[in-house]
Amino acid sequence: IVDRKVVEVITPGTTVDEDYLDKGNPNYLCALASGAKGLSFAYIDLSTGEFRATSFPFDGAAERIRQELERLQAKEMLVQESLLEEYPAVAAAVSERPSLVINRWADWLFDPQRSREGLEKQFGTASLKGFGFEDHDTEILAAGALLDYLDGTARSLLPHVRTLIRYGEEEFVGIDESSQRNLELIRNLRDGDVRFSLLETMDETKTAMGRRLLKQRLLHPLRDLALIARRLDMVETFYRDQGRLSALRDLLAKTPDLQRLCSRLAMDKAHGKDMVAVKNSLLSFEAVETLTGDLSLAFENTAGSLLDAGASGKLSSIRDLLEKGLCDDPSILLSEGNLIRDGYNRTLDDLKTLRDNGRGLLEQYLEEERAATGISTLKIRYNRLIGYFFEVTKMHLSKVPSHFIRRQGVAGGERYTTDRLASLESEINGASDKIVELEKNLFLELREAAKALIPELTAAAARLSELDVAQSLARAATVRLWVRPGVDGENRTAITEGRHPVVEAHLPRGEFIPNDVLLDGGGISFALITGPNMAGKSTYLRQAALITIMAQCGSFVPAKEAHIGLTDRIYCRVGASDNLARGESTFLVEMNETAHILHTATSRSLVIMDEVGRGTGTSDGLSIAWAVSEELLETIGCRTLFATHYHELSLISHPRMANRSMEVLERNGEIVFLRRLIEGAAAESYGLHVASLAGIPDPVLRRAQRIMDRLREKEQSLHEELFLQEKTAPQNPSAAVVPEELERILE
Amino acid sequence: IVDRKVVEVITPGTTVDEDYLDKGNPNYLCALASGAKGLSFAYIDLSTGEFRATSFPFDGAAERIRQELERLQAKEMLVQESLLEEYPAVAAAVSERPSLVINRWADWLFDPQRSREGLEKQFGTASLKGFGFEDHDTEILAAGALLDYLDGTARSLLPHVRTLIRYGEEEFVGIDESSQRNLELIRNLRDGDVRFSLLETMDETKTAMGRRLLKQRLLHPLRDLALIARRLDMVETFYRDQGRLSALRDLLAKTPDLQRLCSRLAMDKAHGKDMVAVKNSLLSFEAVETLTGDLSLAFENTAGSLLDAGASGKLSSIRDLLEKGLCDDPSILLSEGNLIRDGYNRTLDDLKTLRDNGRGLLEQYLEEERAATGISTLKIRYNRLIGYFFEVTKMHLSKVPSHFIRRQGVAGGERYTTDRLASLESEINGASDKIVELEKNLFLELREAAKALIPELTAAAARLSELDVAQSLARAATVRLWVRPGVDGENRTAITEGRHPVVEAHLPRGEFIPNDVLLDGGGISFALITGPNMAGKSTYLRQAALITIMAQCGSFVPAKEAHIGLTDRIYCRVGASDNLARGESTFLVEMNETAHILHTATSRSLVIMDEVGRGTGTSDGLSIAWAVSEELLETIGCRTLFATHYHELSLISHPRMANRSMEVLERNGEIVFLRRLIEGAAAESYGLHVASLAGIPDPVLRRAQRIMDRLREKEQSLHEELFLQEKTAPQNPSAAVVPEELERILE
Repeated sequence: IVDRKVVEVITPGTTVDEDYLDKGNPNYLCALASGAKGLSFAYIDLSTGEFRATSFPFDGAAERIRQELERLQAKEMLVQESLLEEYPAVAAAVSERPSLVINRWADWLFDPQRSREGLEKQFGTASLKGFGFEDHDTEILAAGALLDYLDGTARSLLPHVRTLIRYGEEEFVGIDESSQRNLELIRNLRDGDVRFSLLETMDETKTAMGRRLLKQRLLHPLRDLALIARRLDMVETFYRDQGRLSALRDLLAKTPDLQRLCSRLAMDKAHGKDMVAVKNSLLSFEAVETLTGDLSLAFENTAGSLLDAGASGKLSSIRDLLEKGLCDDPSILLSEGNLIRDGYNRTLDDLKTLRDNGRGLLEQYLEEERAATGISTLKIRYNRLIGYFFEVTKMHLSKVPSHFIRRQGVAGGERYTTDRLASLESEINGASDKIVELEKNLFLELREAAKALIPELTAAAARLSELDVAQSLARAATVRLWVRPGVDGENRTAITEGRHPVVEAHLPRGEFIPNDVLLDGGGISFALITGPNMAGKSTYLRQAALITIMAQCGSFVPAKEAHIGLTDRIYCRVGASDNLARGESTFLVEMNETAHILHTATSRSLVIMDEVGRGTGTSDGLSIAWAVSEELLETIGCRTLFATHYHELSLISHPRMANRSMEVLERNGEIVFLRRLIEGAAAESYGLHVASLAGIPDPVLRRAQRIMDRLREKEQSLHEELFLQEKTAPQNPSAAVVPEELERILE
Repeated sequence: IVDRKVVEVITPGTTVDEDYLDKGNPNYLCALASGAKGLSFAYIDLSTGEFRATSFPFDGAAERIRQELERLQAKEMLVQESLLEEYPAVAAAVSERPSLVINRWADWLFDPQRSREGLEKQFGTASLKGFGFEDHDTEILAAGALLDYLDGTARSLLPHVRTLIRYGEEEFVGIDESSQRNLELIRNLRDGDVRFSLLETMDETKTAMGRRLLKQRLLHPLRDLALIARRLDMVETFYRDQGRLSALRDLLAKTPDLQRLCSRLAMDKAHGKDMVAVKNSLLSFEAVETLTGDLSLAFENTAGSLLDAGASGKLSSIRDLLEKGLCDDPSILLSEGNLIRDGYNRTLDDLKTLRDNGRGLLEQYLEEERAATGISTLKIRYNRLIGYFFEVTKMHLSKVPSHFIRRQGVAGGERYTTDRLASLESEINGASDKIVELEKNLFLELREAAKALIPELTAAAARLSELDVAQSLARAATVRLWVRPGVDGENRTAITEGRHPVVEAHLPRGEFIPNDVLLDGGGISFALITGPNMAGKSTYLRQAALITIMAQCGSFVPAKEAHIGLTDRIYCRVGASDNLARGESTFLVEMNETAHILHTATSRSLVIMDEVGRGTGTSDGLSIAWAVSEELLETIGCRTLFATHYHELSLISHPRMANRSMEVLERNGEIVFLRRLIEGAAAESYGLHVASLAGIPDPVLRRAQRIMDRLREKEQSLHEELFLQEKTAPQNPSAAVVPEELERILE
């Protein structure tokens, strides 16, 4: 019976072998637990050591979890068992993601005390106060459970996981799951690929770590003006210095994935080629530091601050050591030798000489014995049975000296060994084994030396990642003619000649028709957009959201000029596709998403709505769209783009609402969509016009026209009367009075 | 230089090898030419010999061609070159089909005179009058060009192509291309596969030829009451005699594809296994004739009438000949022997004896010479240089007789031949060659004998195909609980408890909710169906069209009882998918299809419309839907099912219109779709109800309710006034008065 030990359990979230990893994607493992005051959620990327935790109330938890999982694209999640039973909505949100592996863990494995102690041990601290946590904070629960789980599976001490960062919803712009999908931030809606996504358009990174950071930033737009400005500054620095940008890109193109290498170092998995990659990373890093040293770049990652002169010195010396110690193209196995460079270690060099010169040493000894014995035909030969031996023909047997030990008789003579021959044989055979052993030990020494510098290496990786993202955005801005947006605290979005970054990138240059966006929380906050299908409404709506997200990520934006007042949440309710995975009807999904917006949007949100109320009858659909519009206009007061087929809504007359439409021309009997936003509502007669082009018989058209004339004539007065009459009296006495009205009252 | 001759050109439409063919699908080759009075269109299925031609006016030609190509699923089309340039609409219709290979032929290749002569030569007739064609009929042009083309490519005389059948639009129910697709007759809309199509549900055929005929019938529902009744009679015969049905199915399951075999016979391509298949087909055919001989079955195919007693006798004797002549598992090559059964031909049997007994004959002769010469050690041996020889050892050389001819001396003796030995050798060696040659000739004689009976074989194949389709429909009716519909000449559709055949087949038994359809050209001809998405409207609309098509194909239908008044055209405008292949906007496509219906529907048509006017604004969409409804109700007067979200239309009050809706219940805070059609319009408040369930805030809901109440209150009076006011005066004085009104006036 062989004694088996589980050395390593590979689960989707704990993989660090490159083969298993999509290099551009972080590989998150999450945990979800139920604390006293709310849900505890934590995630870790084993390969980079990123480790974050948050907490949120039970109320609305399902949507928040959907949002986190969509943002993280997590592959594996640890879940407290009873939680799935107690909160069916949470269980549903979790089970919706087919690519997520769920590990149910018994409740007793989630223990605040145990979690805290585990974390303290990991970080080597007496408490977690240094990381901003109190002993009983809810976040600790899930974070500790994650560490526990890793101890059991990855069985490594994870020294590169050195800090737990608390994050909250208020740090990032809230983008719910369906809005993320609708906006095609990191994958397109059609086939889920990165092609035709915003990420693809922005991605000019040169390293896998840069690509991961870019993706992460895209899924986490910021709400911190200073941080956004710092990111934009860095982009602008490279944007304005194209020579340096180009040099930086060349250097980064040769830079290995130092983040993942740190992780392999930490887990004692780095092999020879990994260590060469560490060395090359450091060479790149030094070159990058030299290239950018005179720029005043403000790095974001706290690890960056570790990189003082002392740290740089340490990195230089380890790079030096690796250069001297590692051979150029080392083996990936430790058991084969071929790891250490010649000249690094005297003993090793001697052993190698012995191994390589074995033949020569034997020749030399043979000559000696020939001279001593006078047997000119003396030969050294080898067979598997007795190893090296002297062969003496019958004729010369009388000359055999006494130190020759007879081993074998053969037809033509006798075979002998000597003490010296035996010792030479054992030296030659033993040298290879010794070389392998010694190379392994020397390699492990080098690796340990590098492992001791993981904090510094991680910091260098963080810097390289940030530089890669900055140069990527500078490059994309250069290639795609993007400009630096002004991001400020005003409740206002003003985009001049904005373009849809993805659509534009897939059209021949100059073909995309730019359009302005002007939404002002204090002025016109709500644009109602009417017009036919195919005219470009959806593109226009999305581009407003995408430009906002890009700006708050710290990227330049596709526009002639853009002023983006910080948004706290961005919603994008577009189209009416059935959500078959959840088994809900189109209209119910539409209403669910609308309710979510009405419940969570604030005056600082950006709301994009396309065709609300389309899935039901006209009167009720129109009534709902109308009431929702009023709610957004009056109660919430957020910046809103609202596209609709209900032209009746354009009759709503409100000081904060503007009518817009997409220009349509008829030319030579064809409908031409100019894709240009114009002031005013679309002509309702467009439908009849198309019908006429399509060949609907004239009498039918005339009748339709007559019906429409009557409808509109009556409806106009009806709607005007209805709206004016209602507007005078506040309709929602209990609802919060909108700030602008409040101000007017206080004046 | 090798003299190469093109023996056969394989193009998609001229393939007859099974490897290239999807066995269940006909393999049509079409031709399209421009005649003096209109377009000439012909098609041929080389494997079955089906050959048909039609003509149609230039006006509306594109849609008609779309329809033909969709119906035929043709793989290759020959097109007159100038036609594509002169009629861009036709060119567009042709180029839309990605799987269709277009062969442009120069105009001079389309010559009426040449076409006529080619056809006369093919059929061996002095004129085409016997087929119902005058010398200058437009149809002849394309049909002749097809023959010309086949002469150049398949290079066969195509004796199985024995008749050209003229067909016209009036024979079959007109189903335009998009309606065919929307109804998923032979392929589903999702992935274009046969799964989830009507064909799949009806297909219980046992032979490939039956499957082809079923598919063809499904794409060509009839407008001839007598023919429909004959088909239904045949189905009913087997439906009522399940024992015989089961026996017939067992026989057909063993029946090869005689149609394709006839084609291979005609093209001199039938190999040994094909001929065995012909024999087995005839055995099956005889057994089927015996099984069904006492039934009075009226076959449809004119070839069937050829099958008198004399013809049956001929088939029996060829079957007998093949049984006697062909070996059980013949080779598929003619050059290998192994084709003819032992005992069929004396010479062949002798040759085979010779070949098989060669060794024995040599042994026998050796014994003779041993006895004669007294050389007991005499041997016959063989080498490649001198063939068979006697070997005599030195010891016995004196005994060698004079007829031994010395050929070679060897170490131990001499080698001799004799005249007899030489002749035996040549007989033995020649026998194999002769066997192959003779077997080939005998086989070709058998094949020619069978080829001479192609008319009879084709007739037998036609009978087997019709029987297979009849049993398939009887079987489907049995398994799926379908009933025989009453098909008559009334302008009325009355289906009691109808079911959607495809949806029902994919649900557990008994789960499908049946619904009635009652449309009466003289009474209620127009049903307006309101209600939410997901409630089953689309299924209901389609099932009415599918049951009608099934009935007019001569199939039983999924209903408790069904009376189907013959329809001349069936339209199905469902959903609003973008037609990207044609580059048109959703709404334009919708209007094009609607215009097509208004221009071509008659009082005897069945029109299914789902959500007309959905792709544009509400006022114009409603106006168009309204005017279209009126046109269908008043001017065309056809049977119509009209589903809409415009609940306003339910206010139209017309003696021939009925309001229907799909029942919806709220149960435990959930919306339940009962999928049951009920009288009256749907409640407009459904949308608000769902909005409330979805969590739209109460104040917004209350406001929406208030807006809707006002809207409806005002609109109701508006619509009533509008409709009543208009109705009194005939709105289209120039339009044809609907027959029912005419009758009423005449009374």
